[in-house]
This record gives sequence, C-alpha cells and structure tokens, in this order.
Amino acid sequence: MNQTFEQTAAPVSLIWKEDRLIMLDQRLLPESIVMLELFTPEEVWEGIHSMKVRGAPAIGMAAAYGVVLGAKAYGAAGAEGWLKHVQSVCAYLATSRPTAVNLFWALDRMNKRAQELIQTGTVEDWDAGLEQEAITIQAEDEQVCKSIGEHALPLFEDGMGVLTHCNAGGLATAKYGTALAPMYLAQENGIRLKVFADETRPVLQGARLTAFELQQAGIDVTLICDNMAGLVMSKGWVQAVIVGTDRVAANGDVANKIGTYSVAVLAKAHGIPFYVASPLSTIDLNTPTGADIPIEERAAEEVTEGFGKRTAPQGIKVFNPAFDVTPNEYVTAIITEKGIVRPPYSDNLAALFKATR
Amino acid sequence: MNQTFEQTAAPVSLIWKEDRLIMLDQRLLPESIVMLELFTPEEVWEGIHSMKVRGAPAIGMAAAYGVVLGAKAYGAAGAEGWLKHVQSVCAYLATSRPTAVNLFWALDRMNKRAQELIQTGTVEDWDAGLEQEAITIQAEDEQVCKSIGEHALPLFEDGMGVLTHCNAGGLATAKYGTALAPMYLAQENGIRLKVFADETRPVLQGARLTAFELQQAGIDVTLICDNMAGLVMSKGWVQAVIVGTDRVAANGDVANKIGTYSVAVLAKAHGIPFYVASPLSTIDLNTPTGADIPIEERAAEEVTEGFGKRTAPQGIKVFNPAFDVTPNEYVTAIITEKGIVRPPYSDNLAALFKATR
Repeated sequence: MNQTFEQTAAPVSLIWKEDRLIMLDQRLLPESIVMLELFTPEEVWEGIHSMKVRGAPAIGMAAAYGVVLGAKAYGAAGAEGWLKHVQSVCAYLATSRPTAVNLFWALDRMNKRAQELIQTGTVEDWDAGLEQEAITIQAEDEQVCKSIGEHALPLFEDGMGVLTHCNAGGLATAKYGTALAPMYLAQENGIRLKVFADETRPVLQGARLTAFELQQAGIDVTLICDNMAGLVMSKGWVQAVIVGTDRVAANGDVANKIGTYSVAVLAKAHGIPFYVASPLSTIDLNTPTGADIPIEERAAEEVTEGFGKRTAPQGIKVFNPAFDVTPNEYVTAIITEKGIVRPPYSDNLAALFKATR
Repeated sequence: MNQTFEQTAAPVSLIWKEDRLIMLDQRLLPESIVMLELFTPEEVWEGIHSMKVRGAPAIGMAAAYGVVLGAKAYGAAGAEGWLKHVQSVCAYLATSRPTAVNLFWALDRMNKRAQELIQTGTVEDWDAGLEQEAITIQAEDEQVCKSIGEHALPLFEDGMGVLTHCNAGGLATAKYGTALAPMYLAQENGIRLKVFADETRPVLQGARLTAFELQQAGIDVTLICDNMAGLVMSKGWVQAVIVGTDRVAANGDVANKIGTYSVAVLAKAHGIPFYVASPLSTIDLNTPTGADIPIEERAAEEVTEGFGKRTAPQGIKVFNPAFDVTPNEYVTAIITEKGIVRPPYSDNLAALFKATR
C-alpha cells in the first residue's frame, strides 16, 4: 500500500486506476487529504473495516473494486477455478463490516456478473468484464444520487433550515451523496438552505466530512454537537431533517449511524418531517424489520480516546454501537432514485421494487 | 498561582487553606489530577471562567472564597472602605460566568454578611467573619447534597438503570453531588443502580468526571455518547433520568448543561421519569421562566478542537451554547434538600420557599 498526498478542493472517496484503487483516507479529514493506493483485496478489506472508506454506497463500490483486484491476481485460466476464486474474494470482503447492505448488494452483483462472464471468452475477458461492472456500479451511483436529489428537491424551500446527521454526502458515494444531494441541487438551483450538521460522535463524520464538503461547496452550514439538535429544533431553526441509511428493512425501519434514532424522536416531538435518502441498493426486502439488521459494535477506544488524547478514565465500561434502527413510524418519507416512498412502507417499498424490476 | 500535584483516590474540587484556595483543575481529569493554589480574586475569576472549577454549587463556593481572598488583601481599616472593596470584589466575580445562579446567590450572601459584620469589631474580625461564612457555605453544601440524596433515594429501586447527563457529582459540589447523591447513598444502602453516563459534548464532563467519580466509588457505570441516549432508552435499559441544574426558574423551567433538553424530550417519548436534583440555592424565584435565564455561548474551539486535535474544517460556523432550558412540562419532579417538589411548580416552589424561610 502506497500513500500519495494530493490537495484538491473537493476530494473524492474512490478513484479506479486499472491495477489499483485509490482510496481517500476519510479518517484523516479535514486536516489531511491522504490518498491510499490499494493493490489487493486484503488492503480493500482493511480500508473498509477501519473506516478509511465509509458510507454505504462507497463501501459497496470499494468492495466491487476489491473483487476486481482479487480476480486480476488469479494466476490460472480455468473458468471454474476463476469463478471459485472470485467467489472466495467476495465472501472474504463480505466480512469487512456487517451493517451496510450495499456491501452485500455490490458483492452479490459482482458474483452474478462473474457467473455470466465465464460462459464465453478468456480469463482476460472475464477480468475486463468484472472491471467494467465495478466501474458501472460507481457510474450508476452518481446518477442514482443525482436522481435522489432531484426527487427530494421539491421538499425544500428557499430559506429552510435542514438538519442532517453523520455524512451521507459526496464522500459517502460516487458524487452528490444521498442526504446531501438535495442540498447540492438546491444550490445549483439558487435555493438557499441553512444546514445544521450534527458532529456525530464518536467518529465525528458530521464535523469532519459533512461540514467539510458543504463548506467546500459554499453551502451555509453550521456545526453543532449531537446533543444540541433538540435545542436547535426547539428554536424553530429546523424545518426538515434528512439522513442517509445503511439499510432499510422491508417494513421501512431504517438503520443508520448511531444517533439517528434520537434525532428522529426529537424531530417527531417538534413536528418536523424526518426524511431518509436511500438508493434502491440500500433497501433490503430480504430483511423483514429493523430487528433483523445486525448492528455493529465497535471498540471502546473510539469513545474514550478517539482524537489524540484520552478523555475517559482507564478501564471504563463503554457501549459503542455504530448504528441504531429508527422504526418506520418516525420516517416521514424515503427518497429513492425512483421517487418518494411514503407509508405504509411494507406495501409501498414492495410495489416500488416490483415496478422497477 | 502555584501548581501542586497530588494523587488521591477521590479528589475534591475545592480545599480552603486560610490564605489560599486549592482548586482541582477539572479540565485535566481524568488523566491528570492537578491542584492549583489561588491567592487572588483574579485567579479565582479565571478558574471559574475557564471552567477549571465547574458545577453550579462548586462555582458558588469558589466565588465565596474569592471574596475572602479579596477582603484579606484590603490594606486599610475603615468599615466603609472595606465594605466598598468587598462589594467591588463581589461585582467583579459575578462577571465570571452568566448562567449558574449559585454564583450570584453566594456572592449576595457574602455581601449581606459583610454588611452585618461591619456593625461591630475590627477589620480582622470582618475578614474572619467572611472566611467563616465561606466555610459555612461549603459545609452546608455537603449537608444539602446528602439531604437531596436521602429524599431522592425512594425513587430508585435495586437493579434500576439510571441515565445522567454532564456532571452533577461530588466534583460539582462539596461532596456527594446533587444528581449523583442518590447513587452514592444507594450504594451505601446496598441498592445497586446501573448508571449510564452521557459523555456530554463538547467539554465531556460526563466522560471525564461522572464516569471517573462513579468508577472510583465502585458504582456500575457505562459511558455512552450523547447520541446513544435514545437507543439505550428504547432498549428498556433506563428507568429514570436524573440531572443537576444551573438554575431553576420560578415556573420550574430548568437550565442545565447543553443536551439536557434533548434527554428530557427523549425520556418523555419513552415514558421515563425525568428528575432534576437542585439545592434551594439553585432555584431562583426572581427568574420567572426559562426564557429569562441568560445562556452562555462559548468558543467554537470547544467543538472544533476539543480533543487535542482539530476535528472540523478551519473557519466552520459553530453554534456552541453551554446550556439549554428544559421546559417544566418535561420535569417529573425537582428534588431539593427539603423534599421532592412536583408540578405545578409555580405554586409548589413558592410554597417551599415560604415554608423554609
């Protein structure tokens, strides 16, 4: 793994370079912009696991490129052996993180594509086919995000205050983001939104990433601590909440970064709509309810010494779930690339998938 | 100002030593236990202002000792000049922080005592009288906290989960704390509570102080990020919330550390009682409602570089209020040293003061 240092105004999370995946180390933002060159599935696994890349769509894209790197490293020519190898790389990469369904969605898509590819051609064709599939996943994600933003835009009026949690922005996706897509499109359309970004403890994706990318884009953004969301709502400064998601269950329950549930409860208590921006690839009809979504627990040190110095006593017991589940009754609408879905979600999500198949 | 380093199992926030005030620098906890020797009102002012000492009762005590240091430094003998000097010291110390009413309460009490003292005796007697008054304030606070704990104890049952925000513990008071007093008394009585401590951004009083002092005392405590409170409640792990306060208005509105309001809204949404532990000295009948409580806003750097390294982009806009106000309808009961007060607070707080006068 090599490190290259680039200063760019708007860094992107993933750049594909034929024999390597360039990954922005998001843990170091906003102070350092470090691009890592990854050559193996193991390096990609580590990049996902350690949250150098994060955000459900970006995790899926990174995993897809990890499969390409694995396939290209396969030394032999037989179709069965190649497929078996690709499938083992997929199975391996699936263990990098448990919650974001895009990871499994992307790996499943790569696996299926591999099965198609071996019907004809040579190992070079198969590798090239997988590479094209990963590139397509990334390209589609950009279009998906833009479509989410276009569908969401009518929900936002000039001068509105909008609160978001964590980072579901360009850094979490190919471009535009999911929850942040309407903010970028609003800006392009001359609609001025006033964004409040929860800092999002423990890893501070809101402070480090959302505040950073919105500031870079010249969008009005104010950083707050997570525990200030209620106060900001009570002051009447927020007319809508919008967040991304790592997995939407078939009944509309939403897994997202820890703290999202508290924001949803606070929004409801203040009569503020709570929107979830989600590509179809993040909606998992095979997960019946939020209770079926595995929630990753992470190391205590993220809470006790996350930013260069110890801020809690040694040996203290810590509860550190990376995500929580917001029950569907708190979700005003789910905004997808195919349009806005409203309750009842069990019916309407199923209908959406049926219509788009 | 000198620094002394002491390692003690349970550090106390303030120790009076005749010619100096020993102040624990709480900003450095839990990693370093540094005791500062303060000789002048200016040093005490700075200690309060920079939050080396914090917690409403402890701020009041520190200010009282600051008045003693100021009085003792007065060079002349005339009663009128001495009183004028003492009053100017009081006025000066009152500017150290705006929200905690105990500051003004303690300074008012010292001022009144000074006016009584000059009726008889010499300047040495007056100084000694003021010193005794400050010592009495501190001694009374310990008794008040213990009484709060005794009144609160019947609200807590063995095995209960209790969530608290910020630090209203021994470090915020002379001993026992306000919100933490029932936890200490529960332990003395063999009642096991399971405490969840919000880390309390931005200054992390929950992580650094509450987790620390409860761990030192051997009480079961789990540290969580503020945004996890909703999840912990939804899991059924919390049967009561108890917090301290910096000022209670006449109508029962409660100013406390930023984030308290969000916790109160979440508690109500989950049907969990929300208790406020408050000495009478923190209840201000001259403040009609929470809207009349001045809310201190603090430096953006507490949010953007609080952990020893920059965690947000340069130049980002930040909203950083130190406190918020929880409206009285969220407050299940206010626990004072004279008993438990329930709604309607306007009537019942007034009646309590009438009865104790």
